[in-house]
Amino acid sequence: MVSRDGSHRDEALAEFARDEYGARIDRIRRLMAENDLGAILVTSEVNFRYITGYQSQTWISPTRPRYCVLPLKGDPIVVSPVTFLVGMRQTSWISDIRSWPAPRPEDDGVSLVRDAVWECVGRGGRLGAELGPETRLGMPVADFLRLRDAIAPVEVVDAGTIMTRVRMVKSEAEVGRIRRVARIVSKSFDAVPGFLSKGRSEKDVCRDLQIEILRNGADRSPYLVGVSDRGGYPNINVGPSDRLLDDGDMLVIDTGSTLDGYFCDFDREFFLGRPSDQIRQLHEKLWKVTETGIASIRPGRRVCDVWAAMAAALDEMSLGAADVGRMGHGIGMVVTEPPSVHPADTTIIQTGMVLTVEPGLSFMSETANGARKVMVHEENVVVTPDGCELLSVRASPDLTTVL
Amino acid sequence: MVSRDGSHRDEALAEFARDEYGARIDRIRRLMAENDLGAILVTSEVNFRYITGYQSQTWISPTRPRYCVLPLKGDPIVVSPVTFLVGMRQTSWISDIRSWPAPRPEDDGVSLVRDAVWECVGRGGRLGAELGPETRLGMPVADFLRLRDAIAPVEVVDAGTIMTRVRMVKSEAEVGRIRRVARIVSKSFDAVPGFLSKGRSEKDVCRDLQIEILRNGADRSPYLVGVSDRGGYPNINVGPSDRLLDDGDMLVIDTGSTLDGYFCDFDREFFLGRPSDQIRQLHEKLWKVTETGIASIRPGRRVCDVWAAMAAALDEMSLGAADVGRMGHGIGMVVTEPPSVHPADTTIIQTGMVLTVEPGLSFMSETANGARKVMVHEENVVVTPDGCELLSVRASPDLTTVL
Repeated sequence: MVSRDGSHRDEALAEFARDEYGARIDRIRRLMAENDLGAILVTSEVNFRYITGYQSQTWISPTRPRYCVLPLKGDPIVVSPVTFLVGMRQTSWISDIRSWPAPRPEDDGVSLVRDAVWECVGRGGRLGAELGPETRLGMPVADFLRLRDAIAPVEVVDAGTIMTRVRMVKSEAEVGRIRRVARIVSKSFDAVPGFLSKGRSEKDVCRDLQIEILRNGADRSPYLVGVSDRGGYPNINVGPSDRLLDDGDMLVIDTGSTLDGYFCDFDREFFLGRPSDQIRQLHEKLWKVTETGIASIRPGRRVCDVWAAMAAALDEMSLGAADVGRMGHGIGMVVTEPPSVHPADTTIIQTGMVLTVEPGLSFMSETANGARKVMVHEENVVVTPDGCELLSVRASPDLTTVL
Repeated sequence: MVSRDGSHRDEALAEFARDEYGARIDRIRRLMAENDLGAILVTSEVNFRYITGYQSQTWISPTRPRYCVLPLKGDPIVVSPVTFLVGMRQTSWISDIRSWPAPRPEDDGVSLVRDAVWECVGRGGRLGAELGPETRLGMPVADFLRLRDAIAPVEVVDAGTIMTRVRMVKSEAEVGRIRRVARIVSKSFDAVPGFLSKGRSEKDVCRDLQIEILRNGADRSPYLVGVSDRGGYPNINVGPSDRLLDDGDMLVIDTGSTLDGYFCDFDREFFLGRPSDQIRQLHEKLWKVTETGIASIRPGRRVCDVWAAMAAALDEMSLGAADVGRMGHGIGMVVTEPPSVHPADTTIIQTGMVLTVEPGLSFMSETANGARKVMVHEENVVVTPDGCELLSVRASPDLTTVL
């Protein structure tokens, strides 16, 4: 069954004004032309939403794939399961929507996509798809390989990098959302000392923070990790657990929370009781490294320069870097996006990029029998013509203590 | 860099007792042997967690892939970015953990996985991977294709179906989690009439429900959709929006909420003011169709028989089925898992399967100028030796009204 259904976009449900998508498509097409692509095919939630405006929570189910073919010229084509048609029409501006009754494992939209590709690029062109670093395909690989065979001799090459490069630079409307959610989360973190106390578990505290974030107006906290231990925390990405908090514990909470489909991503630390001099001093030093990182951001520099500035600051204070692999990254529709604040990433910083500044250090804790601990600070910024603007409310140089 | 790090599983962080994983691996290996597979490679969050016990919220970031190679005989091998090692050791029982400093796009673990595959299957064997229906690869396709070339002549075939078949039948420990979260959500739905009123938006009500679900002890509501409209709702998967509720509106809320990594998935309906006779009668009839579906579940029958029972009940009452494509599905670590309650799915029902029973109908609403609306009811059950047990607290046959 093929049905062609026009869009009937409902402005109350639309994610952004229509011109936001026009600007995105112009930028994508410039890179498509440079890379000699007749069309690109996107199947991942974020790239599909970025182009079409279609929003739906149903992406958490892998049962039914969705496809968008964006040609270099002419109208984009959406291939969608029947069950998503109402939402597709209400939230997307795209009018050429073709559908099939999914699930249908023997042909889950593949033949419709093949026809759409042929219409857009002919039989000798090149098609871009989400193949490269940090991409995930939104369809089964077996179907992707079947499609690749079916459209031969059309050549399929990576377009993940194109989508990433375009998405790296945010519009004002996008930055506005990240700013709002970063403010909401900052305000919510301020409430933590009110419900953090000896005898409560990491899970209790994280649940109360999640409720606070919702109450303050965010939509969801898909990432909300809390890790605690005596005299420092050993990592930043396991938990929260049922571990009960006690005097002498340090707790870090890191959250990627969303508002209208955009993430903030930063952490805050809390100490129960009186921190040792070592902990207080390391905290203050790492706060200064973060300052150095923030101050080093400017259009025209490379993200590896930001890494180098923080690495030099850590070195100068004789601090050992944490084993996290990088000291920041892009954020937006995904909680971690390119670029990486990493020595090998030479991406040029541009106005409108939204980045996390996330230096970390490793140390042997004096109050935990010399056990190895880490300390990681994180803030969110948007790049401006002169430098950058903080989106998160800057953490205090003094470690937050709860007595 | 290759480091081999033994597991140091922290029982407080472990997802299940050690024997849960032993039983899973035995079941997977039986199907591997039947399918002549020397090993399987898993990269998706759920299958990785199902085998290794590794739990981490970091899966929401696509930056760093993780791999597990499970041989037909001998110890499984995990290939992990350095940054996840601490969590891997704390939560997984697997001792052969090999790592590299990710991100490293030129070789993001691929050569380590190649070596692991060769160790496990030799150079002439068959490797299963997540390729087929309803699977998603947890790594970029370009890296998957590179790996496939690198391990030639090892043949790569689908093992997604094997993982799915094993995961379909839940252990008592798994059912216990789904039961707990289904009870929490049932209790939370009971609170909705207390905060549902004229003038509030869909978003307001859904946010309050999300807070209620957290307060009652669940971890998260990754799926929480609310749709309302006058005289019935037009779909079940778009929203919640800023639409303000008014007298004469019908609201459906559907949520996939989690506890300790397991989902429940069911919906409830609410009516503001007095529903028309048409709405009340349709609601009661659809409630009966759900009863028919629940009563038809029994080990040895096929899921398509459950579909047929509900389709016949709809037909008998001259009701048109909603355009959703199926009338139920599996649930577990994913909000929708195979099987599908669909005429083409001949999966044999077994004790321990957890299913949604989800019949839907389509109608022209008399109080909305004949506009097309849908009505979808949903409950969660676990299959028992004699039939099935409700996990959600059964909805009332009378439509919940808020005056």
